[in-house]
Amino acid sequence: MRVDGRPMRTLWPAPGRDALFVIDQRALPHRLAVARLDDAAAVHRAIRDMWVRGAPLIGASAAYGLALQMNVAADDAALESSAQWLKQARPTAVNLAWALDRLLAVLRPLPPAARRDAAWAEAAAIAEHDVAVNAAIGRHGLALLQAIAAKKGGASVNVLTHCNAGWLATVDWGTATSPIYQAHALGLPLHVWVDETRPRNQGASLTAWELGQEGVPHTVIADNAGGHLMQHGQVDLVIVGCDRVSARGDVCNKIGTYLKALAAHDNGVPFYAAMPTSTLDRSLHDGLAEIPIEERSAREVTHLAGRNAAGEVVEVQLVPDGSTAANPAFDVTPARLVSGLMTEFGVVAADADALRTLGEGA
Amino acid sequence: MRVDGRPMRTLWPAPGRDALFVIDQRALPHRLAVARLDDAAAVHRAIRDMWVRGAPLIGASAAYGLALQMNVAADDAALESSAQWLKQARPTAVNLAWALDRLLAVLRPLPPAARRDAAWAEAAAIAEHDVAVNAAIGRHGLALLQAIAAKKGGASVNVLTHCNAGWLATVDWGTATSPIYQAHALGLPLHVWVDETRPRNQGASLTAWELGQEGVPHTVIADNAGGHLMQHGQVDLVIVGCDRVSARGDVCNKIGTYLKALAAHDNGVPFYAAMPTSTLDRSLHDGLAEIPIEERSAREVTHLAGRNAAGEVVEVQLVPDGSTAANPAFDVTPARLVSGLMTEFGVVAADADALRTLGEGA
Repeated sequence: MRVDGRPMRTLWPAPGRDALFVIDQRALPHRLAVARLDDAAAVHRAIRDMWVRGAPLIGASAAYGLALQMNVAADDAALESSAQWLKQARPTAVNLAWALDRLLAVLRPLPPAARRDAAWAEAAAIAEHDVAVNAAIGRHGLALLQAIAAKKGGASVNVLTHCNAGWLATVDWGTATSPIYQAHALGLPLHVWVDETRPRNQGASLTAWELGQEGVPHTVIADNAGGHLMQHGQVDLVIVGCDRVSARGDVCNKIGTYLKALAAHDNGVPFYAAMPTSTLDRSLHDGLAEIPIEERSAREVTHLAGRNAAGEVVEVQLVPDGSTAANPAFDVTPARLVSGLMTEFGVVAADADALRTLGEGA
Repeated sequence: MRVDGRPMRTLWPAPGRDALFVIDQRALPHRLAVARLDDAAAVHRAIRDMWVRGAPLIGASAAYGLALQMNVAADDAALESSAQWLKQARPTAVNLAWALDRLLAVLRPLPPAARRDAAWAEAAAIAEHDVAVNAAIGRHGLALLQAIAAKKGGASVNVLTHCNAGWLATVDWGTATSPIYQAHALGLPLHVWVDETRPRNQGASLTAWELGQEGVPHTVIADNAGGHLMQHGQVDLVIVGCDRVSARGDVCNKIGTYLKALAAHDNGVPFYAAMPTSTLDRSLHDGLAEIPIEERSAREVTHLAGRNAAGEVVEVQLVPDGSTAANPAFDVTPARLVSGLMTEFGVVAADADALRTLGEGA
């Protein structure tokens, strides 16, 4: 999507295939920073420390990380240990393992000398696949937005979203934002309520920024406000992303998603998760019991970075000295609260039957 | 309650009855600041700009504001216009009008020359009444905590609270925290999950601070986290305050309360609001439709103050330039989601029958 009017992606390989360039998202929304990652260790760190984040993007980033490893050592031991280590950079999103397993399946049968070229080609294919998948999710979600717009007779469609499932969470388009960008491009009037998404504020800092760059009308709200807005008819539908979806349709996504799903259900507001099928984990049934939830540093709750009056990004402490904090990073929304899943194959029900056959024959 | 080990209240009159001292809560948790308010205008500003906040405390503060006005002009016109103007300092909490109406009822029949002494005496009575009411709420809530503790066989009782309904929101004891302080004093093992309560962070900055000063174990969490904790059995009950309760038991409280009530209901966790009867507005039935919700400045969402590495409190910007924000300050939790109301007369059901006769014969 666009930054200062020019098209950009969240990552791209160096022409000499000796590095991966990524947007270092920690500097947003205050500054656009591009980081050069020279080896698999740098990619691992960038995923772990959330220079890049978002389930699809960490998958694509990890693929390039393994390709960088193939530059320096491509024997079986290096391949397996690097892939295993990259998988551990973050625990919750299944796309990380999905992308690395896809690369492993291509590389394992090859002699080490052939693995470098194949790895770079496959990483690029994973990135392009992500772009195509997200474009398709957008087309299917667009139909939902158009149907609501038709009922509203010209009034703006109000979408609420949580965290950042925008293009910054993917290679391009985003998942939850893809229908929004496609609708906006077609002139459909819409407005997005952006949950700020504490503690890391990906909504306020990333989603608001990218919507602003694309000229999409939006309003940032505290995470506490969405239920009130739904009670008062100010939300037409909710679209969120997801980090892992179980075989029966339980949706693991950024912490707080479950609360918005409850409010949507209580107020008859449709609640959708945008889900590339790479996010579906058919090995798990009960998402609540089985999906591992990352517990991140308490410091993300006790401290917060922002831009001071002098334009510098500084960190401030929010809680009293001596108070501790807990920081579960994701929660699981039971399938019963999910109106549907927007996938690249169409919008499907969040249930085991629909998901069992998803993508078959495609 | 205690600050640095010494007992303190949130407000106290100057011995010469020429000023009101208050804790300026904007400086917490980083610094204890006491402000001297010399006239009704200063009290109005302190309420409007949230130097003092919390439904019971703004009632008591406004009463002293009207007493200060009686120092300088006590004729009928001054009495009525000052009371009316003080009522408008904030729109949602009914205690503000309750306290001022109580003062008006005492002062109107008196000759202007007698109003000064009567006003200071009645304001003091309102403050003492608040302390007594909160102590009583605590005794009734304590019984609930003891019953849960008995079932847990020595394990800590986990209470979740939202915003600050602590002693800083009242004259002393707090409403939602009163049972907690009484249980802690009796040695009952408990732990409090403190919602940080964006956008103004009253949980992280006020509730965490006062619990810490009293030595109550607590953990600050993002507002997004409570649902997840309830799904995993880590919350035994929720206790919140309230700013206005309708005749049928709909609870208006800090924005985000409704989301926690939904999660509590979905997970079978008891959800209580601590309610001095001064917070009950018998003139309203449907809280969702009838209680006015204050819309506060967008800047409270887009900017945040905290303590930098040098120990200075500074404000930082969180959202991109050009993004707007909305800031509804309260929401309404329908009575159907409320397990009960902790009042000074006992714990009662959140329904019209129970509330109609509440306090009769007391």
